[in-house]
Amino acid sequence: MSRMDRLGEYALLYDFYGELLTAKQRQIYEEVRFGDLSLSEASEIFGVSRQGIHDTVRRVEEALDRYEEKMGLVRQFREVKEKAAEIRSICENIRNRSGETEELGKIVQLTREIEEI
Amino acid sequence: MSRMDRLGEYALLYDFYGELLTAKQRQIYEEVRFGDLSLSEASEIFGVSRQGIHDTVRRVEEALDRYEEKMGLVRQFREVKEKAAEIRSICENIRNRSGETEELGKIVQLTREIEEI
Repeated sequence: MSRMDRLGEYALLYDFYGELLTAKQRQIYEEVRFGDLSLSEASEIFGVSRQGIHDTVRRVEEALDRYEEKMGLVRQFREVKEKAAEIRSICENIRNRSGETEELGKIVQLTREIEEI
Repeated sequence: MSRMDRLGEYALLYDFYGELLTAKQRQIYEEVRFGDLSLSEASEIFGVSRQGIHDTVRRVEEALDRYEEKMGLVRQFREVKEKAAEIRSICENIRNRSGETEELGKIVQLTREIEEI
């Protein structure tokens, strides 16, 4: 997995499981991973050693992996979204062939709402 | 909320968040809530006072409520399932009016898979 994919994956895990972390872990993780602070800058701002910041980020990612292993929510939501996308694609095929109807439009809207959750 | 509704609600919360509890909490909670052990029977089996069993059950339910308050997964999954049911109902209307097609059948199948997750 590339570095960008890994970051994206953790951003997704963080969306689901971030609330299970402590407030301090969340602050540090967000600043370093999503807010572009360097370890040294974060170290100064939070009054924690550079190594401490590094350890926090590592521990947060280990915790996120553990939560996903136990609960599998990201995997489950991904499956739901794939199914919604498949429904939308079938509706778009019907629409391209036979024209728009209110019912097709409503289904497509509902699939979009599922995909955006 | 009736006692049965409350139990059903906690069963759902437990499905989502049970893995975040300790193994001991899970064992006690499952036996007392889903396995029909009385507090006294559970007390004997687990070698914990009757009051201890009672406290564990209460603390588990407080934890489940807290997780849902923080993460809202049961609410989110419920919304997704309602949307899937709405899609299915629209497809069934089309089918009743215009007859079955492979595409409608496929959409209905996908909505069922979402509803069963």
